Amino acid sequence: MDERDYIQSIERGFAVLLAFDEERVTPTLAELAAATGLSRPAVRRILLTLQRLGYVAANGGRWSLTPRVLSIGQHYAASHGMIEIAQPHLLDLSTRTAESASLAALDGHHAVYVARVPVRRIMSINVSVGTRLPVHATSMGRVLLAWAPDAVVDEVIAQGLPELTKHTVTDPAEFRGALRQVRSDGWSIVAEELEIGLLSVSAPVRDRSGEVVAALASSTSVGRSTVEALRTDVVPVLVETAARISADLGHTASARHEGFY
Amino acid sequence: MDERDYIQSIERGFAVLLAFDEERVTPTLAELAAATGLSRPAVRRILLTLQRLGYVAANGGRWSLTPRVLSIGQHYAASHGMIEIAQPHLLDLSTRTAESASLAALDGHHAVYVARVPVRRIMSINVSVGTRLPVHATSMGRVLLAWAPDAVVDEVIAQGLPELTKHTVTDPAEFRGALRQVRSDGWSIVAEELEIGLLSVSAPVRDRSGEVVAALASSTSVGRSTVEALRTDVVPVLVETAARISADLGHTASARHEGFY
Repeated sequence: MDERDYIQSIERGFAVLLAFDEERVTPTLAELAAATGLSRPAVRRILLTLQRLGYVAANGGRWSLTPRVLSIGQHYAASHGMIEIAQPHLLDLSTRTAESASLAALDGHHAVYVARVPVRRIMSINVSVGTRLPVHATSMGRVLLAWAPDAVVDEVIAQGLPELTKHTVTDPAEFRGALRQVRSDGWSIVAEELEIGLLSVSAPVRDRSGEVVAALASSTSVGRSTVEALRTDVVPVLVETAARISADLGHTASARHEGFY
Repeated sequence: MDERDYIQSIERGFAVLLAFDEERVTPTLAELAAATGLSRPAVRRILLTLQRLGYVAANGGRWSLTPRVLSIGQHYAASHGMIEIAQPHLLDLSTRTAESASLAALDGHHAVYVARVPVRRIMSINVSVGTRLPVHATSMGRVLLAWAPDAVVDEVIAQGLPELTKHTVTDPAEFRGALRQVRSDGWSIVAEELEIGLLSVSAPVRDRSGEVVAALASSTSVGRSTVEALRTDVVPVLVETAARISADLGHTASARHEGFY
């Protein structure tokens, strides 16, 4: 794109919004300037603008996000019927497995939770909708990459496969092999590659065109289950549920998988 | 604020993001220009900027939101520990009532869902996190207003109390009386004021300072329950659950409600 078309103040507005997090719940202007690398006068103008738009509020020299910021994400959900279609199936999966059920989509090098039915807190990972997890070390990510265009996989590998635990697959050839295995199996189990103790299993959700548009996932921990138990007990339920969501999205599983055309 | 401090391009950036919705899932540039009232060249620059930031994607002349927009709302959740603290209680409430459980916060004239455990689709209302409902015609809104500063209530009334169904309380004096009743009861039931057939019941969630920071709500429909059944069966569970969330937030219920200080 032509640099003259780029509106830097929009980038800066988002940078200030995203600077609010667990560590900066009610930051001061100075803390936001330090976090974003912007000047205090620039941050001040952005905060006053965001305040007038209703996205932030001031209280005694400290700033906080208002619930209005949630409406931005709500527009994603509203404009993606998939989330509403998937919701009853997530509930069903969560009930049948007694574990949290999630739906994730690909965003660059991350798998982003777009819908979730929580059951209990999983390990130390805060997995609310919008949470982004590294695509290479999660079962959702493996599923999303397994059917992604080669260029997407190449780019993820080119950026490096960071070792998050001692179990993380970091070798490019081994990683490509893992993706081939996912394509062949039709599901993915990833054990302790993101965090020690965490197990997750995912299956692809396809839209009408047959494209994999999301990964359906179930997560648990080594204290509650094993890879073998996931394979025998959870995979069949997960694959069946993912196929039902796909069918509701207009995908004709039999035609596609049994080679009818 | 000084008008010179206002950054219009930030406002316009959000206007374009929010123009994506159920009716405009994959709009063209022209459709976004029509929806926002901005010129096509202005919308084009904004889209190219949002595309580079990863919030929108282009596909054959049509634009769509990416899951990255969900990360903005996730920062709200991450910076508001209340949501994580409330989650197991929402699950518990949902299980005990066999209905959806929600947590809502006040945003101007709206109650905004900040957390939700869905059970099934409620009527025609799409109530994902981030959904905004009119504060005057919902039980969450009544609870949030019942303990809000007078100025907030005055402003809501000054803006008018739109008649959404034939049951909506639209008379200012009657509305103030309803808020007094909520304060006296400690909970609110609103029947068919937002939508015919919809029943909801809410109770206040307080933080350490005793301030009402959210409303805990359970919703159902006239086909599944009645106002009387909500009052006898759901209100006690709801009030108890709201008190547990408040306690987890550091609120000392007994001291406050029994006048120990």
